[in-house]
Amino acid sequence: MTAQPVIIDCDPGHDDALALLLAAGDSRVRLLGVTTVAGNQTLDKTTRNALRILALAGIAGVPVAAGSDRPLVGELTVAEDIHGSSGLDGPDLDGPVGEVAGVHAVELMRRLIAGSAEPVTLIATGPLTNVALLLRTHPEVVPGLNRIVFMGGSTERGNTTPYGEFNIVTDPEAADIVLRSGLPTTMIGLNVTHLALATTEVIAEFRGMGTRLGTICAELMTFFASAYRREFGFEHPPVHDPIAVAAVLDPSIVRTVPAAVAVELNGTHTRGATVVDLHHRTGATPNADVAVGLDVDAFWRLLMAAVRRCAAGAPSR
Amino acid sequence: MTAQPVIIDCDPGHDDALALLLAAGDSRVRLLGVTTVAGNQTLDKTTRNALRILALAGIAGVPVAAGSDRPLVGELTVAEDIHGSSGLDGPDLDGPVGEVAGVHAVELMRRLIAGSAEPVTLIATGPLTNVALLLRTHPEVVPGLNRIVFMGGSTERGNTTPYGEFNIVTDPEAADIVLRSGLPTTMIGLNVTHLALATTEVIAEFRGMGTRLGTICAELMTFFASAYRREFGFEHPPVHDPIAVAAVLDPSIVRTVPAAVAVELNGTHTRGATVVDLHHRTGATPNADVAVGLDVDAFWRLLMAAVRRCAAGAPSR
Amino acid sequence: MTAQPVIIDCDPGHDDALALLLAAGDSRVRLLGVTTVAGNQTLDKTTRNALRILALAGIAGVPVAAGSDRPLVGELTVAEDIHGSSGLDGPDLDGPVGEVAGVHAVELMRRLIAGSAEPVTLIATGPLTNVALLLRTHPEVVPGLNRIVFMGGSTERGNTTPYGEFNIVTDPEAADIVLRSGLPTTMIGLNVTHLALATTEVIAEFRGMGTRLGTICAELMTFFASAYRREFGFEHPPVHDPIAVAAVLDPSIVRTVPAAVAVELNGTHTRGATVVDLHHRTGATPNADVAVGLDVDAFWRLLMAAVRRCAAGAPSR
Amino acid sequence: MTAQPVIIDCDPGHDDALALLLAAGDSRVRLLGVTTVAGNQTLDKTTRNALRILALAGIAGVPVAAGSDRPLVGELTVAEDIHGSSGLDGPDLDGPVGEVAGVHAVELMRRLIAGSAEPVTLIATGPLTNVALLLRTHPEVVPGLNRIVFMGGSTERGNTTPYGEFNIVTDPEAADIVLRSGLPTTMIGLNVTHLALATTEVIAEFRGMGTRLGTICAELMTFFASAYRREFGFEHPPVHDPIAVAAVLDPSIVRTVPAAVAVELNGTHTRGATVVDLHHRTGATPNADVAVGLDVDAFWRLLMAAVRRCAAGAPSR
Repeated sequence: MTAQPVIIDCDPGHDDALALLLAAGDSRVRLLGVTTVAGNQTLDKTTRNALRILALAGIAGVPVAAGSDRPLVGELTVAEDIHGSSGLDGPDLDGPVGEVAGVHAVELMRRLIAGSAEPVTLIATGPLTNVALLLRTHPEVVPGLNRIVFMGGSTERGNTTPYGEFNIVTDPEAADIVLRSGLPTTMIGLNVTHLALATTEVIAEFRGMGTRLGTICAELMTFFASAYRREFGFEHPPVHDPIAVAAVLDPSIVRTVPAAVAVELNGTHTRGATVVDLHHRTGATPNADVAVGLDVDAFWRLLMAAVRRCAAGAPSR
Repeated sequence: MTAQPVIIDCDPGHDDALALLLAAGDSRVRLLGVTTVAGNQTLDKTTRNALRILALAGIAGVPVAAGSDRPLVGELTVAEDIHGSSGLDGPDLDGPVGEVAGVHAVELMRRLIAGSAEPVTLIATGPLTNVALLLRTHPEVVPGLNRIVFMGGSTERGNTTPYGEFNIVTDPEAADIVLRSGLPTTMIGLNVTHLALATTEVIAEFRGMGTRLGTICAELMTFFASAYRREFGFEHPPVHDPIAVAAVLDPSIVRTVPAAVAVELNGTHTRGATVVDLHHRTGATPNADVAVGLDVDAFWRLLMAAVRRCAAGAPSR
Repeated sequence: MTAQPVIIDCDPGHDDALALLLAAGDSRVRLLGVTTVAGNQTLDKTTRNALRILALAGIAGVPVAAGSDRPLVGELTVAEDIHGSSGLDGPDLDGPVGEVAGVHAVELMRRLIAGSAEPVTLIATGPLTNVALLLRTHPEVVPGLNRIVFMGGSTERGNTTPYGEFNIVTDPEAADIVLRSGLPTTMIGLNVTHLALATTEVIAEFRGMGTRLGTICAELMTFFASAYRREFGFEHPPVHDPIAVAAVLDPSIVRTVPAAVAVELNGTHTRGATVVDLHHRTGATPNADVAVGLDVDAFWRLLMAAVRRCAAGAPSR
Repeated sequence: MTAQPVIIDCDPGHDDALALLLAAGDSRVRLLGVTTVAGNQTLDKTTRNALRILALAGIAGVPVAAGSDRPLVGELTVAEDIHGSSGLDGPDLDGPVGEVAGVHAVELMRRLIAGSAEPVTLIATGPLTNVALLLRTHPEVVPGLNRIVFMGGSTERGNTTPYGEFNIVTDPEAADIVLRSGLPTTMIGLNVTHLALATTEVIAEFRGMGTRLGTICAELMTFFASAYRREFGFEHPPVHDPIAVAAVLDPSIVRTVPAAVAVELNGTHTRGATVVDLHHRTGATPNADVAVGLDVDAFWRLLMAAVRRCAAGAPSR
């Protein structure tokens, strides 16, 4: 079986960093490119963070392009309380980084999809602004897409507002465009990502790898844990984004059900909620495969193996 | 300790029936009156059902008044799929019923509160239309109220829409009025009522009582179970409304936390959602005690004892 | 022809004052009662103002009852910029006032309607809170109502927001209840009331009457003019409320068309707008007679004659 | 004075056709390109219509690119009732047309702006989808833009809904993006376009030109008149779009005031309304120059002269 071609659109972000490592370290996918979006931090920071992670992981030859610096509608509010002022607070990440492509994220995605022999899977781990702009400006890419897998939303409660998850609350209109696009779409929401907790054992395993990359992962998760403890009272922080990559690598890890997902665009208190009709009460036709279960152990095995492989090929410094 | 004076505003409804029996059969509360509202069924049916339950339970001298036949804003949609065409389908409930008072529910509540030596607790198990009209038309009753305990809403998913519970979805503006009233308010939402399931053992215990009332409770729950199985795929049906009464009888049965609860009035897909800020993300001041835990065994002991006591005093036919 | 029985529900208010005088001074209507609502000013002020105007006009025996001190949903914002801190700034209105009835406005309306041999016309010149509460709490009054004529809304621009008129913006849900009630309803909006301007000639005519009441009217309109000039840059202030009374006295004065009127409850920038489908674009069924034209000269003749008659019977002091 | 470089983004449409002729026939502007959007008709039809008009007017060398085939959010509803099944019903417009550029409208706009020595004025006469996509995908073009002049919205009533004008109702989010962009923006709304009526005299003047182009204009306006008469009861149809071009050619023709314009994204009955704060009631900062007056005679002189000049250079067939 050949590797699936994927593009990751992200806003690193502690858990986006793990998502990049998981994609880079598993041969079942081939990372065509990385595009960035404003979300967890401003666009310049998320872009720099993407470049840093790729450099740390020794990943060369993967183009990175910066995209939208704000949501389609409304203003950007970054998640500095969770990800710190750099968007990747915790470890000391100084050092050389690669170069950003001279084109917009939407244009890079267009070219990569047009140039791929096989349909591309788009994995989005930030607000869906770039993906929505791609679909609206270049509808001709649709046949070149296999599916869209995004981390965002929830079938239960949210994290940014009581019913709203950060990525979707940040750009509800973009999420609406993606979910109404007619493309096969998989939603990885908080209801499953809250099952993947970076426990003390997880952090110890990262640290125990004895590599610079393992130590950085441990430090990222240590910072992340303290932020989640302070903001939400969580004992251990959930690791959201790599689950979207895991769902592409091994569909058996994430159980999904087809369901109608609407994005609330208009609520006073619920704007950005993903309204998932699990019990078929609304009469709407399913438009997404919605994650409802996670094989937690298998997920961590996958992630740890990928980080080890990245470290093996990465600069040791 | 003297019995707490209570008024029950309800829309029976299978679980409202159990709420009435619980209040009637426990000496820690004194049932001053019962008022009815359109909700589970039309007003004439919920009123007739309230009278029937009181008669079956041998409860005399408790005035019953009919109230609002529709929500403040918008149209009424009854829950016939869950409660059947009578609103209390299942058992054969023919037989004599008492008389309805000649005044509107709002006026009866006003008089009962004005006439009570001690502050009255209002228990609402249907849409909050009557309660809202009382607060807006007769603000002078406020000092005569101890608190409002309502079954409605959810901290998690809903039942009528993905995030909306039936009572609140039916009259969101009424719920908004109650929750912004400044009165001590306790919200008993689906997040706890879904813990109180009428299992096969529960139904067997009702039937095993060997009384007409016990048999009727068993038949009500058998119908309710089949409706929940068909509509939601639930193995056993949740018994919502009596938990609001139980919270008044014995506060140790329901664990609550103070929280800011907003009612979504404007959403396209979320109108009527109760947006509960459990993690203090919105900055709003708590305006309700929100149920977050239930002592399930203690609840069933309380309910069974009350039904037995009602049956002991009820006509055996 | 006998006089039509009317109740005026109002929030005086400079133009409400003229509405009361018009109703009191024209024998084609019989003023059964006056009820007050919070709007232009707080309830205690609007109630006191209603009593003052009746006293100044020598109107005795008309019961006055205070009603809602706030809208159904949301908070009250009074129009102090337009009506001053008393709600009736301008003239010195000290002096004795009558007594307020011991019942709520809703209860007074109920009794007056129940006690009237002929169907009553309800004229509302403030937010529709009381009228909505009456319809929801006492639907049995409906057969006793002839129709509802309210000043509020607009087919064009608003005054409180670009598309929202003060009375409707203050309580949109109440307006929605009235407009969906199925009762014959006449809407007198800004599109016609902005044609009735208290020009220099109008003020001079009031002053030239040589009566205390005429002078007070002149002083009220002088204050009103300066407020409209400052807030809206209007040369002369529109006299809104008496046009609702005029439409009852003489239907030939106000030209109406049947139209579907929806109240916007949900807009971020348009909450409280009356959305009038004059060109049948929405497919909705007409639910109101909407004023679209005014015989300005006839209106002023009617009003001046009524004020003169009131003054003739009023205490001259 | 050199000619101002302009791009016209349009959805022809009868009045868009006149806008194109006005821009093509007046030397004060230089038409760099024409881009098309779905609106009055589907994208393929509006694109074909743009090509047809340019061919009929003998305009060569102006690139035409097709853009968005639907609004950012929601579904497209075309104005077939007003513009017919071709989008340009009335005259027989068969004949050769030019070729569409091989790039998306957004890309053509980007290139034309990047390639222009002087800042470009963007004139939009359809839904603002393409313009919004340009601003979000290529924010780097902003310094190359002089201003945006769009036909859309209203300070008074709408045409598609009581308060909503067609272009803005079709894509409210796009309008919101443009109006919040910080760019100098001029709004030409129905409140002025309804002053420019294609009267019998106007149509006679077109016909009296004695050219094929004049005859086509007369036939377009004759069809347009019958549609407006049927749908709105208008005696003569308003000619909306060329006024946006006229405002660029000669600013003295259109009187504007700076004002805060918000687009209602959330209303149940008012979605797409442009809420213009003419009386400074909302406290919002002006974000557009809003047309409030039109020199009707000067406008028609400008348009007639331009059509004559186009006809002089056009194929006579």
